[in-house]
Amino acid sequence: MNVNGAHFRTIWLHPDDTAVIQIIDQRHLPHQFIIENLTTVAEMARAIRDMHVRGAGLIGAAAGFGMYLAALAAPRDGFLAHTLTAAQELKATRPTAVNLAWAVARQLKVLDGAPPEQRIQTALNTAQAIADEDADFCRRIGEHGVSLLADISRRKNGEPVNILTHCNAGWLAFVDHGSATAPIYVAHDQGIAVHVWVDETRPRNQGARLTAWELGQHGVPHTVIADNAGGHLMQRGLVDIVLTGTDRTTYTGDVGNKIGTYLKALAAHDNDVPFYTALPSSSFDWQIEDGVRQIPVEQRDAAEVRMIQGLHDGEIKQVLLTPPDSPAVNYAFDVTPSRLVTGLITERGICPASAEGVLGLFPEKRKG
Amino acid sequence: MNVNGAHFRTIWLHPDDTAVIQIIDQRHLPHQFIIENLTTVAEMARAIRDMHVRGAGLIGAAAGFGMYLAALAAPRDGFLAHTLTAAQELKATRPTAVNLAWAVARQLKVLDGAPPEQRIQTALNTAQAIADEDADFCRRIGEHGVSLLADISRRKNGEPVNILTHCNAGWLAFVDHGSATAPIYVAHDQGIAVHVWVDETRPRNQGARLTAWELGQHGVPHTVIADNAGGHLMQRGLVDIVLTGTDRTTYTGDVGNKIGTYLKALAAHDNDVPFYTALPSSSFDWQIEDGVRQIPVEQRDAAEVRMIQGLHDGEIKQVLLTPPDSPAVNYAFDVTPSRLVTGLITERGICPASAEGVLGLFPEKRKG
Repeated sequence: MNVNGAHFRTIWLHPDDTAVIQIIDQRHLPHQFIIENLTTVAEMARAIRDMHVRGAGLIGAAAGFGMYLAALAAPRDGFLAHTLTAAQELKATRPTAVNLAWAVARQLKVLDGAPPEQRIQTALNTAQAIADEDADFCRRIGEHGVSLLADISRRKNGEPVNILTHCNAGWLAFVDHGSATAPIYVAHDQGIAVHVWVDETRPRNQGARLTAWELGQHGVPHTVIADNAGGHLMQRGLVDIVLTGTDRTTYTGDVGNKIGTYLKALAAHDNDVPFYTALPSSSFDWQIEDGVRQIPVEQRDAAEVRMIQGLHDGEIKQVLLTPPDSPAVNYAFDVTPSRLVTGLITERGICPASAEGVLGLFPEKRKG
Repeated sequence: MNVNGAHFRTIWLHPDDTAVIQIIDQRHLPHQFIIENLTTVAEMARAIRDMHVRGAGLIGAAAGFGMYLAALAAPRDGFLAHTLTAAQELKATRPTAVNLAWAVARQLKVLDGAPPEQRIQTALNTAQAIADEDADFCRRIGEHGVSLLADISRRKNGEPVNILTHCNAGWLAFVDHGSATAPIYVAHDQGIAVHVWVDETRPRNQGARLTAWELGQHGVPHTVIADNAGGHLMQRGLVDIVLTGTDRTTYTGDVGNKIGTYLKALAAHDNDVPFYTALPSSSFDWQIEDGVRQIPVEQRDAAEVRMIQGLHDGEIKQVLLTPPDSPAVNYAFDVTPSRLVTGLITERGICPASAEGVLGLFPEKRKG
């Protein structure tokens, strides 16, 4: 998507140096636009763990490129042992994100089958393929999902469709287009009037920092709100649809996503507002059935709750929000049970949030 | 309650100067403890509007003392016209708070009946009475409400009772004791093990700043969480009871409170967690029946969403959280419908959140 009018992806091979992967270091947005060079698995692992890159699809692409950096550095003898160690290091960075394990496993499988002299090129091709597929799946999510917004727009006689979104499931969370934002960008580009309520998404404020920034760069009307505001907006009829992304969704339709998503789903259900989650199929967990009990929820550093960063006198500064001796905890995700999810928007179309619905679109995943 | 071991109320007559009202200027907490002197209605109105003082009971007490400052400055001829103008100025500061209008009306009524030479003393006596009653009602709320915590403690064999609270309904929101915190302080003082999940309560962070501070000053174990976390905690069985305050509750049991309360009530209902609201009877609205439709919800400055303040290098600084050109809105309250409220804790006891329940405790309010 666009940054100051120029097209960018969130991760790419350095155009002049095939030993370097470039990313947008998202920690500095919206205040500074900084591109970072990564040359080792350790650098990529840190970039994922410390959230220079974040978001379901982008983490997968980053892990794919991380495995390419591992292949570049691996000795010819002991190549597979080296890449297995790298795989463990990358997988340990963010336990909730299913795309991470999926991308790493895909690289290990093709590297295991590749002739030794083609391993590096195979790893690069696979990393590029993971990135390209992510962008392509998001593009298709947009094409399918726009029908929901077009229907609402028709019902409202062209009045703006009010969409509430949580966290950043935008192009910054993927390689391009985004998941939850993809239908919004398509609608906006087709001339359908849309307006996005952007949850600021404490504690890391991915909504206020990233979603607001990328919508603004694309010219999409939007308003930032405190995470607390969504229920009131829905009670007042000011939300037509909730669109979120996901870090991991079970094939039975339980949606693991940024902490607070469950609260918005409850409010949507209580006010008859449709609640949709958009995801490429790489974000499905095809094994577990009960997301609320079984999806692991990462606890991050309490400092992310106690402190916040923002711009002061032109510089990014951290400020302390709590008393110096008050403890805090920081659960990063929650799980929205399928009963609260109206539907899932995938690269193959829209389906109910149920095993029947999901396996209807992905019949090759049926067991037995 | 205690500040560094010394007893304080939130508002009081200057001990050496009866023309001065003193308050804790809560804007600087938890980082700085500053006492402010107020000598005019305009200063009191600004202190209320700009939230030097805030919270249902304290706003009422502040309005009561504001009317005393008006009486002090009023000419002997035209006294009532002067105080009526002051009443309008004070009432306009925070439209949602019912205590404000209640305290002002009480002062106007007694001033209207007082002999001219006793008006100033009457205004002072009434202001003191409003403050004393507020403290006394909160004390009694604590005595009634502690039974709920003691019951849970017994069921848990003395394991800590986990209480989730939103915003600050502590002693800082009243004259003393607080509403939602009153049962917690009583339980803690009785040796019942309690632990409080403190919602930070964006956008103004009254939880992270004020509730965490006052609980810490009293030695009550607590943990600050993002507003988004409550649903997840309840899904995991980590919340035994939700206790909130209110800015205005209808006699039918609809609870107007800080934005985001409704979301927590939905999560409590979805997870069979009891949800109680504590309030002195001055916070009841005895007129309106449908809180969701009829309680006015204040919109505050969008800058409160876009900016946040905290401590940086020993100084309180404001930082910008959003892109400089992203709009924001700031609804300050929402209304939780009575169907989601397990009960109300008042100075007269605990009752169901219904007209029958409330009028059972306050039979003098029955109409006709």
